[in-house]
Amino acid sequence: MSLETAPTRFVETNGIRFAYRRYGRNEGTPLLFLQHFTGTTDDWDPAVVNALAESRTVIVFDNAGIGRSSGQTPDSVEAMAAHAVAFLGALGLPVVDLLGFSLGGMVAQVLASEYSRLVRRLIIAGAAPRGGEEHLLAVVEDAFSRNAADVRLPLFFTPSEGSQGAGLAFIRRATARTQDRDPESSKAVGEAQARAIIGWCARQDEGERTLRAIRQPALIVHGSDDTMFPSINAYRMFKAMSAAQLILYPDSGHGALFQVPDLFAGHARTFLDL
Amino acid sequence: MSLETAPTRFVETNGIRFAYRRYGRNEGTPLLFLQHFTGTTDDWDPAVVNALAESRTVIVFDNAGIGRSSGQTPDSVEAMAAHAVAFLGALGLPVVDLLGFSLGGMVAQVLASEYSRLVRRLIIAGAAPRGGEEHLLAVVEDAFSRNAADVRLPLFFTPSEGSQGAGLAFIRRATARTQDRDPESSKAVGEAQARAIIGWCARQDEGERTLRAIRQPALIVHGSDDTMFPSINAYRMFKAMSAAQLILYPDSGHGALFQVPDLFAGHARTFLDL
Repeated sequence: MSLETAPTRFVETNGIRFAYRRYGRNEGTPLLFLQHFTGTTDDWDPAVVNALAESRTVIVFDNAGIGRSSGQTPDSVEAMAAHAVAFLGALGLPVVDLLGFSLGGMVAQVLASEYSRLVRRLIIAGAAPRGGEEHLLAVVEDAFSRNAADVRLPLFFTPSEGSQGAGLAFIRRATARTQDRDPESSKAVGEAQARAIIGWCARQDEGERTLRAIRQPALIVHGSDDTMFPSINAYRMFKAMSAAQLILYPDSGHGALFQVPDLFAGHARTFLDL
Repeated sequence: MSLETAPTRFVETNGIRFAYRRYGRNEGTPLLFLQHFTGTTDDWDPAVVNALAESRTVIVFDNAGIGRSSGQTPDSVEAMAAHAVAFLGALGLPVVDLLGFSLGGMVAQVLASEYSRLVRRLIIAGAAPRGGEEHLLAVVEDAFSRNAADVRLPLFFTPSEGSQGAGLAFIRRATARTQDRDPESSKAVGEAQARAIIGWCARQDEGERTLRAIRQPALIVHGSDDTMFPSINAYRMFKAMSAAQLILYPDSGHGALFQVPDLFAGHARTFLDL
């Protein structure tokens, strides 16, 4: 089974029907993926998810209102975290590891600090802390203005030949699945999620209480030239968290983990297996 | 063969007789270790060097005036780099990988930028760039005032139980060899090297020309709570270098690489083998 072939399944709780895929080795703590701005289960990189599935169960899902999940997309990170908790409850999972990318990395921070018993270890990729530096709307607007073959090429990768080449390879991997795909996110989903991200970064967190409340081992991963959430966010999260490891990749943008999927998966596996 | 059992050998060039040990797998690019302030070949962590020797040739040596090498310890990083170049010439090695720790990480920056053809890849651990932030004398003075069982416990590790425990294990590994050991460095060596480090950090490098001149792939490793060279130095080096990866470890001090030797050796091997 792979991300490209795993069937989409559904589970219902609190009046919301969640779409998800679950596969991989039936061993250890399952790894829950928390997705980026407007992303669905089909926007993950199969190279990353499949590599991690070799040694653990992986779960990708559409949070409320996304893809084929019912319900309303909330406009706060906290409400997204509450939906994720409901989803885990419906699956009967008492504890998971998290891999949150971008917006998903913000949801991961809330889960690890406010629902700490649910979380064993967490990976935060391309995210920002509460009160962090974001350039979401300017970067998204600029990316769409470029009329690229796929908007993720300017959004997730640097202009260098190497990064753009890695970006094209990522797009090919992420579009390989043709059957049983999620619909793309609506404008309303994007607007609600943008409010959530901008609100998260606008609200200062005095004394970095959220980050300091995260006691689980964490791996923070970021690109050197992330234009949406500059890499100083990652350094700042690292400094405030008590048990975080930081890995920054060269010549990489917001989608650093998809630029070097084998290297990232190796680092993630090493961290999760420690 | 291991760091604990490899015989000390000697090679002479330019009137200097260099002491060194060389062992490991005879494959790929040899890895040259560049040592920290007042350190000799016997101050490396066998767990780190032996792990890396499994997949490549490793070379540890005493630079001019250190341990059993003859000559005068210079008081500039640039002169130390020139001595290292002479040593490599005497061994007949046209290209090496570098692992420079602390002062050795400064020497590595000069080698990679000014003698670039000699260097394929480099690892810089616990160092600072030209113009970087250092607290050498204050930290060394404070460490000696604590009358610890070994001054490296307060110098290289954080006060936490976990870090101090890892520190004791490191000291045990680094003192396991009893025969054919180097003498400890004299006060004169410490004074010359302190001038070199302080001079390196005092001199601003406009436009970070040294870092920008390093084109080789680099891995920068640092502890979260390095009191001698704060971790912002590592972040700054990462941002100015074109092909650097950054890894920062949690709850760790100047000797982070010796605190998590297996994790570090794994990261280093992954980087060198890419």
